[in-house]
Amino acid sequence: MIDAFAAILDGPGVLTGADIGPRYTNTRGHGVAGTPLCVLRPKSTIEVSHILKLCHDVGQAVVPQGGMSGLVGGGAPLGGEVVISLERMNAIEEFDADGRTLSVQSGVVLQTAHEYCEERGFMLPLDLGARGSATIGGVISTNAGGVRVIRYGMMRESVLGLEAVLPDGTILSSMNKMLKNNAGYDLKHLFIGSEGTLGIVTRAVCRLRPKPRTVNTAFVGINDFADVVAFLGYLESVLGGELGSFEVMWQGYDAFVRERCPSLRPPLKAGYGFYVLIETLGNQPDSDQGKLEQILADALERGLVADAALAQSDQQRAAFWAIRENAGEGFRTLGPMVSFDVSMPIKSMGTFGERITASLFQQYPGSTCLVLGHMGDGNLHVVAAVGSGTAEDKERVNDTVYSVIRDLGGSVSAEHGIGTEKKDYLSWSRSPPEIALMQTLKRAIDPKGILNPGKIF
Amino acid sequence: MIDAFAAILDGPGVLTGADIGPRYTNTRGHGVAGTPLCVLRPKSTIEVSHILKLCHDVGQAVVPQGGMSGLVGGGAPLGGEVVISLERMNAIEEFDADGRTLSVQSGVVLQTAHEYCEERGFMLPLDLGARGSATIGGVISTNAGGVRVIRYGMMRESVLGLEAVLPDGTILSSMNKMLKNNAGYDLKHLFIGSEGTLGIVTRAVCRLRPKPRTVNTAFVGINDFADVVAFLGYLESVLGGELGSFEVMWQGYDAFVRERCPSLRPPLKAGYGFYVLIETLGNQPDSDQGKLEQILADALERGLVADAALAQSDQQRAAFWAIRENAGEGFRTLGPMVSFDVSMPIKSMGTFGERITASLFQQYPGSTCLVLGHMGDGNLHVVAAVGSGTAEDKERVNDTVYSVIRDLGGSVSAEHGIGTEKKDYLSWSRSPPEIALMQTLKRAIDPKGILNPGKIF
Repeated sequence: MIDAFAAILDGPGVLTGADIGPRYTNTRGHGVAGTPLCVLRPKSTIEVSHILKLCHDVGQAVVPQGGMSGLVGGGAPLGGEVVISLERMNAIEEFDADGRTLSVQSGVVLQTAHEYCEERGFMLPLDLGARGSATIGGVISTNAGGVRVIRYGMMRESVLGLEAVLPDGTILSSMNKMLKNNAGYDLKHLFIGSEGTLGIVTRAVCRLRPKPRTVNTAFVGINDFADVVAFLGYLESVLGGELGSFEVMWQGYDAFVRERCPSLRPPLKAGYGFYVLIETLGNQPDSDQGKLEQILADALERGLVADAALAQSDQQRAAFWAIRENAGEGFRTLGPMVSFDVSMPIKSMGTFGERITASLFQQYPGSTCLVLGHMGDGNLHVVAAVGSGTAEDKERVNDTVYSVIRDLGGSVSAEHGIGTEKKDYLSWSRSPPEIALMQTLKRAIDPKGILNPGKIF
Repeated sequence: MIDAFAAILDGPGVLTGADIGPRYTNTRGHGVAGTPLCVLRPKSTIEVSHILKLCHDVGQAVVPQGGMSGLVGGGAPLGGEVVISLERMNAIEEFDADGRTLSVQSGVVLQTAHEYCEERGFMLPLDLGARGSATIGGVISTNAGGVRVIRYGMMRESVLGLEAVLPDGTILSSMNKMLKNNAGYDLKHLFIGSEGTLGIVTRAVCRLRPKPRTVNTAFVGINDFADVVAFLGYLESVLGGELGSFEVMWQGYDAFVRERCPSLRPPLKAGYGFYVLIETLGNQPDSDQGKLEQILADALERGLVADAALAQSDQQRAAFWAIRENAGEGFRTLGPMVSFDVSMPIKSMGTFGERITASLFQQYPGSTCLVLGHMGDGNLHVVAAVGSGTAEDKERVNDTVYSVIRDLGGSVSAEHGIGTEKKDYLSWSRSPPEIALMQTLKRAIDPKGILNPGKIF
């Protein structure tokens, strides 16, 4: 096999043995990677096609890899697979200002695409913490979310067309550039969010948006959950399309930040029930900041919010976001932790926070349970540290949180996917007919089961 | 079979013979309908499931029907099928203001859903001319587009979850209410836009948006196509999310309206190369109209636009839209006509208009070729009247227009779908591997081929 691959790829395209660096087996703490047969680094779609044809003929398992920033082990080899890393397929192929599209190979790093677009007055809306390593192919294959979903949707909404290689090596080129195309089934959705189990995405056409002219960021303190929901509704109604982020941190998270993250500086006093980071993306440099100030003043007057701070500089804006995104120094003091990425109807979130915190504390007195997330999207993250890292306790913590999610009709994975880490819980938020249909699709498109086996199902 | 259906449904649920009214065979001029075996009008998902189980057992073909407003014959029986009309499944099941969702049965008429939401301060963004008859299930199954796609996307973007019955009667309930849910494959996309060939949509959760507080509408005259493109880019950059519609009418359409549509009153003088109807959806009642006025004044000063009129009343706004939407009185004077719904990269639209007009005129001197559409979405409609309605001439006109579309990398169907009317041209904008994969999906999900046979493929 290795010889056959070497005939397809150039020298640096085939890595074996000790040449396989840690990049290709990095699970970021989510599961344990096995040793792959080899790592292949193709430079073109046709090379990917040749590789898959060979693997398909002999039933060789394949794991596609993007930037390896995933948090559910979706890109990690389990042992014996051929890893196909798209990292060298990193060309920006075409920028169309009139059509507001960017065509790229799938190994382009998200931040590279961001910078390319911003220099030209546009934005690729998807943004997330791992922007410096995540690739376009990776965020497509996982249908990534992030901090601007309430305004622009998940990655799915920013993909107009794509090219994928099917398990048997067939190249499926659907590089559509139009907002509207109803000529037959919209096949791209098979490959978006299916975590590399149905095809390997090699190129994509992304939808761009005009770069907003203004960004305004505020930090708000609110006492009751009902008021958080009402405040979100109020902002949606007065800001319409301009609300870019609505991130909520529960009181316990704020207390944790004050205690364990000395580098972070919360702008409001302690003790509010909830802290909300909001950001507006507007187009009126003269008036947008004043408009948000007025909206916050109205919300204060109505009693919807208890306190508010509006960022007055880029530095202050970054400091607000750091509270939401950069609590790593504190997390490291917690010992073993289990993290969650769940979604549920917005109105159920208050109940969710109360129930999981109480239930974990009852089982593990002294445990820490931090709740925060993209509330405007119905998406919360939870960090639970119960003082034990055993498999048994991890399972108990998982069962505790996911059983509440199941009762509330939520999802065990809002944006991270299933990978290997959440396989056991897929059936907690998808029904037997849904899972059966997923398997029907998998069998129809990948009858030999060579593409990313052991993931999702 | 009829007896078996009668055992499942109530009396008015089964129509046969002369009781089958014209509603069920109305092709709206697109193709010829055959006589169905019977028409079934279930009132619940479980009834749809029982019907499909029976049909699946004996290999009986089925045609699902919504509001019968489609323009490609997708809902018309070809002869001998069981028609399943969802018209009696018209309950609005749940409205969630906090989660901004509306859960409905699929027979709810679009306009009914609009009015229900608007009374509560929200909007279901999808809007199109057939709003009074089209149903939610129908606009989902066809992934309908319409006049607000540039702002809110196609129907696909407004569907959070759905319930569908598979060909064998399996009920697939994926009534997700969250913006984010990456727990396994996102199966709803199989049923959105597949024109009833993979499952029958019975219920849906729609994403609502806050109802905009202001609507401002303008009619603009522009001389060169390059300026139309530049004007669109300018509006996108200064208006961001507030641009709701960008509809362009070519000069020939304006001349036609003046000559053949006496009830319409164009607000600008004749002779500009292009007329653009723009609409903004905003949230600042005090300033939005003034803002648009200023933007138009700037565009006039820069020479991007030659003339502009801003609607000063709802009546004037309706009169502007009537020019775009209500030219039926004129169309009826044209004799036989062939109409198109195509998409292409925006920058190619000028070339497209020139090439098809010239080519048709060369083949049919004196022919009329009207070009207009949702330019902001890459979508144009064409009405061609060549003085003949023979099948041969229709094919020649189709070939003429679609060959230009093929050369420009466009789509033979932007928003209407394929149905029976565009089957012969599917391969002009989709490749053999794409069509093969569509057929793989069809075989995997509907191995007996009972669901809407003869459509798309």
